[in-house]
Amino acid sequence: MAVGLTGLPPLHPVQGVSLGIAAAGIKKPGRRDLVVMWLDPGATCATVFTRNAFCAAPVLVAKRHLAETSPRCFVINTGNANAGTGEAGIADAEACCRALAELTGCMPEEVLPFSTGVIGEPLPVDKIISGLPLAVAGLSPLGWAEAAQGIMTTDTAPKGASRQFAVGSHLVTVTGIAKGAGMIRPDMATMLAFVATNVAVPRELLQQCLQYAVDRSFNRITVDGDTSTNDACSLIATGRQPLLIASADAEDYAALRDAVTDVCIELAQAIVRDAEGATKFITLEISQGRTEQECAQVAYTIAHSPLVKTALFASDPNWGRILAAVGRAGLHDLDVSRVNIYLDEVCVVHGGARASEYREEQGQAVMNRAEIMVRIELGRGEVGAKVWTCDLSHEYVHINAEYRT
Amino acid sequence: MAVGLTGLPPLHPVQGVSLGIAAAGIKKPGRRDLVVMWLDPGATCATVFTRNAFCAAPVLVAKRHLAETSPRCFVINTGNANAGTGEAGIADAEACCRALAELTGCMPEEVLPFSTGVIGEPLPVDKIISGLPLAVAGLSPLGWAEAAQGIMTTDTAPKGASRQFAVGSHLVTVTGIAKGAGMIRPDMATMLAFVATNVAVPRELLQQCLQYAVDRSFNRITVDGDTSTNDACSLIATGRQPLLIASADAEDYAALRDAVTDVCIELAQAIVRDAEGATKFITLEISQGRTEQECAQVAYTIAHSPLVKTALFASDPNWGRILAAVGRAGLHDLDVSRVNIYLDEVCVVHGGARASEYREEQGQAVMNRAEIMVRIELGRGEVGAKVWTCDLSHEYVHINAEYRT
Repeated sequence: MAVGLTGLPPLHPVQGVSLGIAAAGIKKPGRRDLVVMWLDPGATCATVFTRNAFCAAPVLVAKRHLAETSPRCFVINTGNANAGTGEAGIADAEACCRALAELTGCMPEEVLPFSTGVIGEPLPVDKIISGLPLAVAGLSPLGWAEAAQGIMTTDTAPKGASRQFAVGSHLVTVTGIAKGAGMIRPDMATMLAFVATNVAVPRELLQQCLQYAVDRSFNRITVDGDTSTNDACSLIATGRQPLLIASADAEDYAALRDAVTDVCIELAQAIVRDAEGATKFITLEISQGRTEQECAQVAYTIAHSPLVKTALFASDPNWGRILAAVGRAGLHDLDVSRVNIYLDEVCVVHGGARASEYREEQGQAVMNRAEIMVRIELGRGEVGAKVWTCDLSHEYVHINAEYRT
Repeated sequence: MAVGLTGLPPLHPVQGVSLGIAAAGIKKPGRRDLVVMWLDPGATCATVFTRNAFCAAPVLVAKRHLAETSPRCFVINTGNANAGTGEAGIADAEACCRALAELTGCMPEEVLPFSTGVIGEPLPVDKIISGLPLAVAGLSPLGWAEAAQGIMTTDTAPKGASRQFAVGSHLVTVTGIAKGAGMIRPDMATMLAFVATNVAVPRELLQQCLQYAVDRSFNRITVDGDTSTNDACSLIATGRQPLLIASADAEDYAALRDAVTDVCIELAQAIVRDAEGATKFITLEISQGRTEQECAQVAYTIAHSPLVKTALFASDPNWGRILAAVGRAGLHDLDVSRVNIYLDEVCVVHGGARASEYREEQGQAVMNRAEIMVRIELGRGEVGAKVWTCDLSHEYVHINAEYRT
């Protein structure tokens, strides 16, 4: 079903990061559902987590560990989110960390746990611990593509992105993988993403770089408006390429930040392209707003409208539903007579009403496409925001009505 | 498909209100799609309208007319919303008012227009004007049930409610009809409702009474979170029963207000029961909150979650999705360890995690029901809010992907 996803692009290894995978039988026997990510000594790590008040146990444990020390490895499982599991869930996540620490010779606090899958069921700790030796034995710098497979839940395709650029004689690599297909409205979403680069960046600056990228990528996509309990995105800088980027003012920093942002946007878009039941990939571009926040508010109101989403699914140029969504987005003092709406190159609404030259066939021609830009000019300012989303199909209902059974 | 709707209840006539209906061929030939409502002299009228910034033309015209004088009659059409139609739409709505004024001998400003249906297509004014004489000729105090039919769009059943109570020797009647099945998140929703009583109430007090009732009924339901461009609810007091209720302190006022609220709740619930594709009628009762507003916020976050709604459709006691929705509702400082969740009588989440005594069969037994109460205790205050909603089914997608074609 994925819209415009044609397999993983080449994922350049990042010196200093190894990945291993195993089938632990967490939800289905034989499914490769356990990933270990190993960082060579000296790496720095930045992470952003879900803002859902119900944080899953692994999120709470990861935050606690990050407060104590710098991580050396990640244990990532799919099939079970270890969320809504209370104190027992926290003990389970800690047990996984301890087991991996023993196997690899690091401290338990140097392990970060990540889980994704069903909420509310106890984590099958024994299965995970039994799977760890195989995952550790297979650790390899070439493991990115397999790891992208190993973190999938309802995803139909693995997601990865990679960039390389030169700074003087230094070849800088940024590579990332992500998972997520539903319960997606990051901030963060049911989404895990792991991105790494081979240069050296101090932790605070790395966090700033990650936040910049996430705000323009994972925090600008939505499938169903549901923010999960487990979202997390990590950015690792291994420092194995002897280039230190120590300040936000450095020219190299902008290049790195843009590459990280590019990788995150490609991953975020891949999540939307593979969204549960998606048949259309939609870019919402809101411009001429007073603040970026109000533009995002309009975009999300459209992106979350079941009526807009079902019309997109039907390839129906039903611009009235878009207009109604703009109108209920809660913008103070919106002068509707200045609002214009475009579907790709076609102006459908001009000055708040049906554009006089608009003909239905033009809208229909755009809606028949698999990738569509919906552009809204608010006519009240100079800033904008872009959000990516998808349609709402029978298949979405089918997948989410059947997920547990 | 409607959940628990078993035909119209008896609708008591309201002295001083007559209704007539006609087939004007607005969208489909032969369909009775035009309603005229006539008020005897001396009636007062209160109205609330959509808060969507894109008000439809009839809403703008009705507001203008209400500012000038007290209404004597309503012209209501289905099949075309006359929204997103700009200046031409306003002229069209005015033309309908003028035509009805000529037929009935009142002033054009004494006519309020209401439209519901497709957005963005020109109103077929000629068809409406041709249909008016028949509707006017058929005006009758017994016309409520037919009018409830005549204002339907995607509704599968007409919606009406009626109450009678005595104040001394006065028999007080409150009768109302409504339409709406999708694009429903009032404030107001794609929803028209007309309620009348036979007592005398000054306009300001009547407006206060209507606002009270609407805040507890139409503004507490949601089907898909989409607020339409055309919502309106009118409350008429004909004064034909010689009982004057002139002050909010009067004991009679509370009785009237409660009866109006009851009628509005029954109509609002009927809209949810008949929601597009609905197979479940869900009551969300949030308690122990700090403010009513934050309780409503939690309720709407759950009610708008496609994941919760699809789980309800599947009769799946997937309480993790409810918990995740509570967690992303944006409540400041929510202590999740004090949150309890119940499905009808079954406690599924206690202290923020799966209740230890909970067994899946118990949740399954509740979810198999057609009418379900989801109760959330926030554990941080003493107020609550109630919202009614429905599930998200294949049929919803089908209806809304096919609506225009």
